[in-house]
Amino acid sequence: MAHLFRGGRVHQIFGADTDVGKTIFSTALALASAACPLDGSVPARTLDAHAAGEAVAYLKPVSTGAASEADEGHLRAFAPHVEAHTLMQFRDPVSPHVAATHDGSLPADAQDAALVSRIGAWIHAHTQGAALIETAGGVHSPGPSGTSQADLLRPLRLPTILIGSSVLGGISTTRAAYESLTLRGYDVDAVLLFPSPIYGNDTYLRDYLAERGVRVFTLGGPSSTSAWGPPPVRAATTAQDYEAMRRYYLGVVHGEQGDSAISVVRYLRELHTQRIAALESLGKRAHEQCWWPFTQHTRVGVDDVMTIDSAHGDFFAVHTPASPHSLLTPVFDGSASWWTQAVGHAHPRLALAAAYAAGRYGHVMFPGAAHEPAVRLAERLLATVGRGWAARVFYSDDGSTGMEVALKMALQSSVRRYADDTSDAATRARTVRGRQPGSLGGRPPRVWEVLGLQGSYHGDTIGAMDACEPSVFSEHVEWYQGRGYWMTPPTVHLRAGRVYIEVADAGRDWPASGALAQLDTIDDVYDVEARRASPLAAHYRRVVHAMLERLVVEERRRFGALVLEPLVMGAGGMIFVDPLFQRCLVEVVRERTDLFALRDPPLRDAATGTAPRGAWSGLPVVFDEVFSGLQRLGYASGTEALGVAPDVSVVAKILSGGTVPLAATLASDSIFRTFTSSTEKAHALLHGHSYTAHPVGCQIALETLDLLDTARRTGIWDRARVERLSHLPRVDSVMALGTVLAVALRTERAGYASEEAESIVRRLRTQAVPAACHPNVPPTAADVDAPAFPLHLRPLGHIVYIMASPTTSEPVCQRALDALEQVLQAAT
Amino acid sequence: MAHLFRGGRVHQIFGADTDVGKTIFSTALALASAACPLDGSVPARTLDAHAAGEAVAYLKPVSTGAASEADEGHLRAFAPHVEAHTLMQFRDPVSPHVAATHDGSLPADAQDAALVSRIGAWIHAHTQGAALIETAGGVHSPGPSGTSQADLLRPLRLPTILIGSSVLGGISTTRAAYESLTLRGYDVDAVLLFPSPIYGNDTYLRDYLAERGVRVFTLGGPSSTSAWGPPPVRAATTAQDYEAMRRYYLGVVHGEQGDSAISVVRYLRELHTQRIAALESLGKRAHEQCWWPFTQHTRVGVDDVMTIDSAHGDFFAVHTPASPHSLLTPVFDGSASWWTQAVGHAHPRLALAAAYAAGRYGHVMFPGAAHEPAVRLAERLLATVGRGWAARVFYSDDGSTGMEVALKMALQSSVRRYADDTSDAATRARTVRGRQPGSLGGRPPRVWEVLGLQGSYHGDTIGAMDACEPSVFSEHVEWYQGRGYWMTPPTVHLRAGRVYIEVADAGRDWPASGALAQLDTIDDVYDVEARRASPLAAHYRRVVHAMLERLVVEERRRFGALVLEPLVMGAGGMIFVDPLFQRCLVEVVRERTDLFALRDPPLRDAATGTAPRGAWSGLPVVFDEVFSGLQRLGYASGTEALGVAPDVSVVAKILSGGTVPLAATLASDSIFRTFTSSTEKAHALLHGHSYTAHPVGCQIALETLDLLDTARRTGIWDRARVERLSHLPRVDSVMALGTVLAVALRTERAGYASEEAESIVRRLRTQAVPAACHPNVPPTAADVDAPAFPLHLRPLGHIVYIMASPTTSEPVCQRALDALEQVLQAAT
Repeated sequence: MAHLFRGGRVHQIFGADTDVGKTIFSTALALASAACPLDGSVPARTLDAHAAGEAVAYLKPVSTGAASEADEGHLRAFAPHVEAHTLMQFRDPVSPHVAATHDGSLPADAQDAALVSRIGAWIHAHTQGAALIETAGGVHSPGPSGTSQADLLRPLRLPTILIGSSVLGGISTTRAAYESLTLRGYDVDAVLLFPSPIYGNDTYLRDYLAERGVRVFTLGGPSSTSAWGPPPVRAATTAQDYEAMRRYYLGVVHGEQGDSAISVVRYLRELHTQRIAALESLGKRAHEQCWWPFTQHTRVGVDDVMTIDSAHGDFFAVHTPASPHSLLTPVFDGSASWWTQAVGHAHPRLALAAAYAAGRYGHVMFPGAAHEPAVRLAERLLATVGRGWAARVFYSDDGSTGMEVALKMALQSSVRRYADDTSDAATRARTVRGRQPGSLGGRPPRVWEVLGLQGSYHGDTIGAMDACEPSVFSEHVEWYQGRGYWMTPPTVHLRAGRVYIEVADAGRDWPASGALAQLDTIDDVYDVEARRASPLAAHYRRVVHAMLERLVVEERRRFGALVLEPLVMGAGGMIFVDPLFQRCLVEVVRERTDLFALRDPPLRDAATGTAPRGAWSGLPVVFDEVFSGLQRLGYASGTEALGVAPDVSVVAKILSGGTVPLAATLASDSIFRTFTSSTEKAHALLHGHSYTAHPVGCQIALETLDLLDTARRTGIWDRARVERLSHLPRVDSVMALGTVLAVALRTERAGYASEEAESIVRRLRTQAVPAACHPNVPPTAADVDAPAFPLHLRPLGHIVYIMASPTTSEPVCQRALDALEQVLQAAT
Repeated sequence: MAHLFRGGRVHQIFGADTDVGKTIFSTALALASAACPLDGSVPARTLDAHAAGEAVAYLKPVSTGAASEADEGHLRAFAPHVEAHTLMQFRDPVSPHVAATHDGSLPADAQDAALVSRIGAWIHAHTQGAALIETAGGVHSPGPSGTSQADLLRPLRLPTILIGSSVLGGISTTRAAYESLTLRGYDVDAVLLFPSPIYGNDTYLRDYLAERGVRVFTLGGPSSTSAWGPPPVRAATTAQDYEAMRRYYLGVVHGEQGDSAISVVRYLRELHTQRIAALESLGKRAHEQCWWPFTQHTRVGVDDVMTIDSAHGDFFAVHTPASPHSLLTPVFDGSASWWTQAVGHAHPRLALAAAYAAGRYGHVMFPGAAHEPAVRLAERLLATVGRGWAARVFYSDDGSTGMEVALKMALQSSVRRYADDTSDAATRARTVRGRQPGSLGGRPPRVWEVLGLQGSYHGDTIGAMDACEPSVFSEHVEWYQGRGYWMTPPTVHLRAGRVYIEVADAGRDWPASGALAQLDTIDDVYDVEARRASPLAAHYRRVVHAMLERLVVEERRRFGALVLEPLVMGAGGMIFVDPLFQRCLVEVVRERTDLFALRDPPLRDAATGTAPRGAWSGLPVVFDEVFSGLQRLGYASGTEALGVAPDVSVVAKILSGGTVPLAATLASDSIFRTFTSSTEKAHALLHGHSYTAHPVGCQIALETLDLLDTARRTGIWDRARVERLSHLPRVDSVMALGTVLAVALRTERAGYASEEAESIVRRLRTQAVPAACHPNVPPTAADVDAPAFPLHLRPLGHIVYIMASPTTSEPVCQRALDALEQVLQAAT
């Protein structure tokens, strides 16, 4: 993972092209680093004053060609004080990916993760002074595995020196290389190149890159022994050659012409100091100026701030001020950055997709318009999440806006249908209780409510909040008013190795509290088809029927939509709802068309017989799949999981691959037609956001869905470990589904306001990060046995959960579980 | 602007580096295009069968070096049937930007816009068959002005052939070049390169690019006359050379080894057909599958759909099926894509900023965290929009969510303060009328309202809607309930050359309807400081005082916030509110602390004396600057424009440079402290969105604000033209401020439901696009006299408005005004 040391600079050196002089510049920088006094005094005009400056180490991770010609040899010859090392040497003078596989398969120590670990280990042995890592060829020249070096080294995210090209065409290759590095989130500290008096590359690049805050240095020039341009020789074969080259280096280091390598070193030292200062101040600056979401600021000390310098794959690079090692520590993003991550942070294909759409369109307004990313994404969503039922896609910006759109669609559909002035005798007879005198008393006019489940969460805008029961989230929101009824759901728990379905608190909805069923495995729970014939299904149907009769007929409430989070209610506390129950609930609501047709005055019925084929029935069913959809829980959609389709569905979070906000609300044709009943503008869905269907988000979404297609989809948590957790004394129950692992702690004060999880999460972080032995290399398959595995988890009341991505590797998931088990055991 | 022709393909040919064989491949493609029969029959094995295939034209826009050696010459020699042309020839064999300025300044016809226009004109003369445009050097080799060719040619956005590099390092340069092209929104149709048997570049790139949907072709190989790799000679000097080269081409065209140029041509033809089919189907696919924002679908026919193929600067490239010329027409984005655009579409610096943040972080969760883009953007906003008053920045996703956050902040601040059980005798005495018996009757419990202006709009989520008066937007939204009082604002109008301030409908707020003042110029209106001493200011204060007394004391209403859109209420109908009035309103509200302290039961007063220094006073003042801020109206902020600061402010739209959704809610320390009064989680602002402070948006915002710093800020509309508009019979009044020009039409049915503007906008589009004479080149300074100037405007009831960007050029603004004037005149 990314590195930064107080005592020393580490730079990676990339070339804009092959043969641009990377080794010459590395040698010059090595000499200058050693020669330039740290105390600010004037450097002696010699190449041998290496006691004055920094200790210098040089690494060539991969080299091809005869060992005698290796770049390391050049360093040894001209900068003998430098500790030079080559990790892998291949004999063939070709690209490493060709050389490495020349004898057949790729050696184990040349796999990407292994190589990065070894480079990381070398870095940790050279944290004082200056360390230079010279890549091979150009920025995208392949490493041994074929992965481009710019991609391969990305987990380390080292400050970068780009060696520009001074030949004809060098402006282009240098700019393109700069862009490829930037696209991977590297900071290019400086560009160095030979003089380019004929082509003017140095002048051009100096101006161009200055606008982007990058300094360009031109090293070398006409000296006593060399003309403009590249140095006299590279592989010194004679004493004369050697002397000419020595004189050349003396000129370059001290800047006989052009910039001096010493000035480069001074600049790099300055940037290094600034980089550390910026990193160290960032937490305080955020603490003073930012207003964090969902955060009680008085509970966050300035030292509690997690400063994220960068991220890669499943890991943040987090500032760790107390570390005696790197100032940056890899920390597992254990909540998938608020459940958004799907293919890992900083995926280069998503970055390029973002750049492509930004470069092709920027944003283009969407009403009445078509653009390729939006249309293709709509088609893709209709063919997956919306398969078999959805006809339209409405875009917005986040889960909350997506749900506001869904609610407007659903409620208005009910209003328009049930405002029809029709009724029949059967309905009137069935609803006779509703006609008792005075039964209208207390019922506020014109309230259309939603039917939902306790623990639901749909977002933080007022409409989305109103669709949720009163809770700590809404307690201090003046304009909140829960507009609905939320039933107690039966939930699934793995407790001491056994799977229970239970109702915690019967309330008015259930005949009794307690266990409803016990199943053998978690998988059994999600085989909804097999369970449909069970007695429990019949029980569910009876309970729902009774509840609806009570609410509508006795209590005279009027509903406009059934709103569900399929499978798991996330923000409400990782509540795993029995999928069989959700299935039955949807089915019963759709059957009871008679009930929902009630109007003010009551006893009216919708003309249900006239509803067109495929039209919604009973109530429009809204699936809030913002959290649960798109492989988060191992299913593409709630429809796939429950075996029943909604009329409206909302997806977000994973949709845009964990990069930028984007939501999509899918709707059936029946819902859509509610808003196309006339040509009146006022009858349309008058909702929109400026960036509706922004091409950048749509393009990223297409790329994400492509990548997810090749990611594994089944549960990623080791069953034995999960079961072990369920036996711990500190643990009430456990659940694991898809990428989510949730542990409910034994507590007396459950819910969001509980601080149980917060204390465990804190303990987990401190226990799991023994700074003294932290390896500071990315915990990949290659070094999965490293002792420390810091996890950043987000506490949720009395629930501790870990959320991985569909692409997270098995070893990483296992280490996360082990770390959690260790802490829970210690906390007992 | 972008081009696409049914009858012919146009391709631009870029090189991964200089000297990769662009001219060889161009020649081979030219020969193959001519030789490959269009009827699908087998091509004759000769180079002279050019009657069978396509007519071929070749353009070298810029060439350097002796004319005799020019690439055009090579084409002429080996493909004499091709119409070859060079636009600009510079003698020096160096980069065009060096050669072009060798004699001093840049020739006028070598300026970027002129060059692009000339290339566009050449393309329009070669719309049948195959047209090849060969660039010079690599993708980023500078054109004559110094602009990289990839940037220079972007307005044309031609389908691209990338010539890869087969030498050592060529994998890197080819991949980097591919990324630079992709970053600019180009579609790379194919990559061609020479065989690379030693380095394996062709094999590597074939696999790598296949994953990205790009085909790689390897042309050439061992034939009777040439070894693997590049061709035998390039500049044929002898008959023998010429013959060798001819044989080489014969082999390449027909694929003696490797892929044949004919197979490339077939593939390009196929892509061309697919491209047209995709473009032509896109509108229908959107029409059938997308649900557009703010759109009555029944009013949009499938042929009305605006298919946007790409965008650049101020222009969309729009599909024009009826055009006898290009299938793509440049259309001025006259509503700045829902008011988001600031620096033009597809700005390469914004695309790179997006890619950098995506490559460095992806998204990282924000609660309790710090990352550089978010912290730097917060600092930047506090130092500009929030200068002198704001202390905190809360991020969300769009204007609507930003306003929901603002409302929660403001209302909760009022609730917490005015829930204090304090009162004083003076307040009780002043509010005696409120104590009349029965005066509580009908007042619903616990309603905290907002005070605002008629015509306000704050977004489409329920909370934001509730802060607006009932309107067509909310008429069919069941959960909407306006919670506030909205005063009639005095508005500004340029009518027949004179500037009036008037109140259209006095209602209960004003003593009388009609004109309140007349000023000489629009600029005078915005000199708020000078006008503060005017009698009108005193009048405003009296009116506001009286209104507040009436609302609070007589009507017993309780307010929690004053919510204003500074200067212009956009969505409400481009209502230009007198800034002096907004200034006075804020001041009076802040003075009347006594009034707002009223509680249920009434007559209580807040302990106003105890409010800390710098605390909000009276009511928290919220500026909704989503539309009006960040130079949209020529001001960085409402504070700058009105001379009075809010307590909470929301910015969005321009903030993220017209690319991705991002909003920021700024708050004073006084507001922030409302939520930090305890360590209780429940007392925090429990609001957040998954992508809060997403790094991609923040990084783009930083880059946008940098770019805006160098953009001009003053009014961009020609005063004489604006005044002329105000005299037209069809026009009621006109206003121009910053980037906005609004025309109110004379109508009997004003407001959003009016269809007046819609009909004008339609007429404008058809009148302004005489397809037969459309130049299909970007209307830049160079060809501003071109006859047609299509404008895409968004109708707004009886208002027609044009919205430019702070960076839109003067000629473009003038052409837009002229087009509007012409249509308005004709419509009279």
